[in-house]
Amino acid sequence: MDRSVICAIATASGSGAIAILRLSGAGAVELADRLFVAPSGKHLKEAAPNTALFGQIVDEGMLLDEVLVTVFRSPHSFTGEDTVEIACHGSPYIQQRLLQLLVRTGARLAAPGEFTLRAFLNGKMDLSQAEAVADLIASSSAAAHRMAMNQMKGGFSSELRRLREEMLQIITLLELELDFSEEEVEFAERTALLELAVHIRQLLTRLAHSFSLGNVIKNGVPVAIAGNTNVGKSTLLNALLNEERALVSDVAGTTRDAIEETVNLNGVLFRFIDTAGIRETSDLVETMGIERTFAKIEQAGVVLLMTDLSRGTESFSYYYQQVKARLAPSARLIILLNKTDITADLLTPLETIRLITSGEEILPISARTGDNIPLLMEKLTEVITANPFGAADVIVSNTRHYEALLRANEAIERAIAGLKTSVSSEFIAQDVRECLHYIGEITGTITTDEVLGNIFSKFCIGK
Amino acid sequence: MDRSVICAIATASGSGAIAILRLSGAGAVELADRLFVAPSGKHLKEAAPNTALFGQIVDEGMLLDEVLVTVFRSPHSFTGEDTVEIACHGSPYIQQRLLQLLVRTGARLAAPGEFTLRAFLNGKMDLSQAEAVADLIASSSAAAHRMAMNQMKGGFSSELRRLREEMLQIITLLELELDFSEEEVEFAERTALLELAVHIRQLLTRLAHSFSLGNVIKNGVPVAIAGNTNVGKSTLLNALLNEERALVSDVAGTTRDAIEETVNLNGVLFRFIDTAGIRETSDLVETMGIERTFAKIEQAGVVLLMTDLSRGTESFSYYYQQVKARLAPSARLIILLNKTDITADLLTPLETIRLITSGEEILPISARTGDNIPLLMEKLTEVITANPFGAADVIVSNTRHYEALLRANEAIERAIAGLKTSVSSEFIAQDVRECLHYIGEITGTITTDEVLGNIFSKFCIGK
Repeated sequence: MDRSVICAIATASGSGAIAILRLSGAGAVELADRLFVAPSGKHLKEAAPNTALFGQIVDEGMLLDEVLVTVFRSPHSFTGEDTVEIACHGSPYIQQRLLQLLVRTGARLAAPGEFTLRAFLNGKMDLSQAEAVADLIASSSAAAHRMAMNQMKGGFSSELRRLREEMLQIITLLELELDFSEEEVEFAERTALLELAVHIRQLLTRLAHSFSLGNVIKNGVPVAIAGNTNVGKSTLLNALLNEERALVSDVAGTTRDAIEETVNLNGVLFRFIDTAGIRETSDLVETMGIERTFAKIEQAGVVLLMTDLSRGTESFSYYYQQVKARLAPSARLIILLNKTDITADLLTPLETIRLITSGEEILPISARTGDNIPLLMEKLTEVITANPFGAADVIVSNTRHYEALLRANEAIERAIAGLKTSVSSEFIAQDVRECLHYIGEITGTITTDEVLGNIFSKFCIGK
Repeated sequence: MDRSVICAIATASGSGAIAILRLSGAGAVELADRLFVAPSGKHLKEAAPNTALFGQIVDEGMLLDEVLVTVFRSPHSFTGEDTVEIACHGSPYIQQRLLQLLVRTGARLAAPGEFTLRAFLNGKMDLSQAEAVADLIASSSAAAHRMAMNQMKGGFSSELRRLREEMLQIITLLELELDFSEEEVEFAERTALLELAVHIRQLLTRLAHSFSLGNVIKNGVPVAIAGNTNVGKSTLLNALLNEERALVSDVAGTTRDAIEETVNLNGVLFRFIDTAGIRETSDLVETMGIERTFAKIEQAGVVLLMTDLSRGTESFSYYYQQVKARLAPSARLIILLNKTDITADLLTPLETIRLITSGEEILPISARTGDNIPLLMEKLTEVITANPFGAADVIVSNTRHYEALLRANEAIERAIAGLKTSVSSEFIAQDVRECLHYIGEITGTITTDEVLGNIFSKFCIGK
């Protein structure tokens, strides 16, 4: 294992009041010591661990900056190695000069995620926890943050440990049976083994199922806004955005797309997709556009079908049928009757639409005045909060984990089939071992340099 | 004085591995303690100062993040007050949530520069040092960095202290004279006083003169590139840029302008201004454009007059006269003979140009192949390094300081005139006191809320 001293700027790039440079590896403290001069004359290698020491960084006799340096001693650091954190003035120029000085003094520029990789290799965390560090830093909503934090704290890991123990139990029993196979002793009662395997499958399935939720929490719930043109779709989007701006101050990093608007509502990320332009047409190009719109509706977790009360309910029936035909089974449909502020008679259109839709959720709103917008927001966030998984439950949000879970599931399925049809213990044990292998891939007990490279290259530098 | 707890994100905005939030004021430790849970159960108020403590920030029972918290106790902190630094995961979402949590718990969002303002108000530094903190963070070249660092370390302050002491000496002597004026005793020998005042003027003048250098160090040396079109001006700029890229890695924050290119050469900032298009014309609009070009040449610290060897020296004489007529007295002119790589006969044009210019500095180069470009860079940086001020000398770079020095200079001029013409001691003392006042404005011993507001509002938040 590479224990050379790595260094990186750990704070966001650009100008700030303070920046942190981080060194980790065997000899990190001694390396930093060569550049550091404390007014007391104290050396970093004599400094008490975890204590901020004020001093100067000197580059060939020239004062580069006044800094606060904190030394962390192995194994009591994030990486598990000797670590030095240098807090300098946050000028990009000083940061770069200091980084170059560290490299000239013998440190190597850290690869993306290399600090976390070392934390994993030094047993400070398993692989799924290491991946959660990156998710945590990328999280931009309360739900995504909670999910990443739970994973980082080891919620998922302990779930997998339970699974692993049950699998090992099956394997042990099956191997015992094999050892004594000539004596015709059946140590592992097949029904008991089957029960265990079915329980494992149940856990695996639940985890794999949680991925669809985890994925929307991480990437946002897709919400398609459908309806005739000019029914107030962009006004609605602005109303939702304004409402939210009053609740939560700006969070940097929110991405905006030409077609999609990502909005954080009550701590849940939503991707609003405007699906303008559904109508009957014989034009080929237009038909293709409409097909794309339908695809968006099929993928949506929520569809908001909007109609303009002031323009009557004439074309509503057509839109309703089109949307209803494409709605995913798990998706939620909310019918929005817009412009309550300029509608004298609300009752007649409401009854008409109730007749057409029978039992759908209908919400009269005014995107312009904000009437019922808070209620709509509540209904949207229910999509996440009313899910079958509790707050404490483990939710899988990582595609790599999801795929490993699916493969583990396939393996346990084979084992179950084997147990049911009195296949030789040897083969069943092989299937359970394969299942174990995939679980090990998630936690990193079984891993390759390639897998690690893939995972950590997506990290930012300095983490 | 406001001692309420202020808080801010102190690291650059955006996503990083680590971010730092900073709290300062009376009760900062107790405030942070209400949100902090250490695994050991240790409270921040019991924690040893300057020691990083690992723990969790909990928001209404929910884990917000795992953090490292360092407590600094008054007066041993940057601000001089109790200070808490919270190092959290560098997600913009977590940073914002944590900031909001601190505000909900009773902290106030810090105004720009408020931490440094408090450091000033608490006597941790004088005003010129506080201003140097902002300059240090903004500095993007070695020279600007050195200048700001020198000012922050108190180089300028001690120079001003010396001045102040000499002024106080004059005032004391003059006041003694006043007290005993009826006894006709002349305590202060006028010639000695005059000598002292002249020495003060000398110091003030030197400091004020250093401003032109300080200003170019801070904002870049203006270099006008003049010459016929297509002589290779942009190739030269690229050659200088490439040369530099090989020496210094990218420094973020370098500004680029459509007309001006800012380049950091050997640690000195240069602003290259392309002054294309000088030629004889009767067109009014074109004449106005050319006038603007001439204005650039008048303001330049260096003028590079370029000619294309392959096209002969025909029009050179015209350009030389135009440039020479506008050159500032302190500016340096370098004549560049470009395209040595495709010129067979270098001697003939060189001699022609030597005849035309007599005594000007001439440098044959090839912008395309890089021939003599390192030499040109050296000559450019000489503009700064060959200045009459030594590396250890104090250089004024702040317009506010410059203006105060000019006014102080005027006051000491009046005192000198008074001493020469036997004006009453009372009036002379008044002039010296005025001089002292302006020095006090620089260091902040004499200041108003308005002045402070002006200075610190230009700082970044978190500093």
